[in-house]
Amino acid sequence: MPKIVDHEEQRKRIAEAMWRVILRDGMEGATVRKIAAEAGMSVGALRHYFRQQDDLLVYAMRLVNERVEQRILRLARTNLPPLEKAVRLLLEVVPVDGERRAEMDVWFSFMEHVRHRPDLEGIPENRLHLFVSQVLAYLQHEGLLEEGLDLALEAERMYAIVDGLAVHALLEPERLRPETMEEVVRTSLRRICRNRPQ
Amino acid sequence: MPKIVDHEEQRKRIAEAMWRVILRDGMEGATVRKIAAEAGMSVGALRHYFRQQDDLLVYAMRLVNERVEQRILRLARTNLPPLEKAVRLLLEVVPVDGERRAEMDVWFSFMEHVRHRPDLEGIPENRLHLFVSQVLAYLQHEGLLEEGLDLALEAERMYAIVDGLAVHALLEPERLRPETMEEVVRTSLRRICRNRPQ
Repeated sequence: MPKIVDHEEQRKRIAEAMWRVILRDGMEGATVRKIAAEAGMSVGALRHYFRQQDDLLVYAMRLVNERVEQRILRLARTNLPPLEKAVRLLLEVVPVDGERRAEMDVWFSFMEHVRHRPDLEGIPENRLHLFVSQVLAYLQHEGLLEEGLDLALEAERMYAIVDGLAVHALLEPERLRPETMEEVVRTSLRRICRNRPQ
Repeated sequence: MPKIVDHEEQRKRIAEAMWRVILRDGMEGATVRKIAAEAGMSVGALRHYFRQQDDLLVYAMRLVNERVEQRILRLARTNLPPLEKAVRLLLEVVPVDGERRAEMDVWFSFMEHVRHRPDLEGIPENRLHLFVSQVLAYLQHEGLLEEGLDLALEAERMYAIVDGLAVHALLEPERLRPETMEEVVRTSLRRICRNRPQ
């Protein structure tokens, strides 16, 4: 089915062009004209793949989500020691490198846009809160967490930490270094572990 | 000087109209025309107070900052027990009620806009990181913190927590209740205090 494959490839290519335009000019500057130019095609050709700009927006959001989820799944299958695996899982959603930074950047632009667009349908659900809860549940299952913790509260705290770091990395990139972000995540997990491993 | 006072009052009134438009329609919807209509004046009259839309943007951002700082100063002068004062100081920048929520909401819209506008001058500095550091320094000065803490790291963590909570309160208002936000802030401070006061 070369045609179908090609169709999907083109849609991805356009979505990635949209990301680049958003990274450069923000959501307000992400016009169909600019996205088409960035993808090296005419506005008419772009419209062949996405009839409405909203369709492209929803597709591009889903694509970011998918990329992150695939990295998380790959990491979850590895044989790292549990605490190290948990740290690395959480760091998948913190902008510690250029790839994650770009994802977070477009993601926040998307979120800022869609929260004023209650009419939009098909926006991917935010599953990050659930993901953080699952990482803590995994550590508990492995017997690493302190007893008597309020896991819902700990998940809320850890979720705030990873997204707070992400926002700060985007807004204050000169101040907040990747090593510091990793140290914050690592010590936050250690603090709720039995015996406080150093 | 009734004329000068009136001039400043009008500028405030326009900035507050801009906030309301942003809260409703986002930054992308905040056109001069809509802001003038919201303030109950003509576009021409608005231009008398702000020649460029960017002047209004910078002024409106400074006004949000000023309001928060004034509340913080008032609270800092009270005689609350140190830990309670520290908790309440941090809660001034977490959207636990409608007023703070509206401030955070426009603030994030502003930040998302200005990070793609390196040409803009006069944007108020983000002093929140410094503020959180000062709250921790205050607790240390009062002898409440555990010994041997890396205060820079603790400030980074606490700063991430308050801004992470703020982002989640804006994006997931149904899920994240004010009591939970307060509990996260309170237990995060307790955790770095000596004797872990309950």
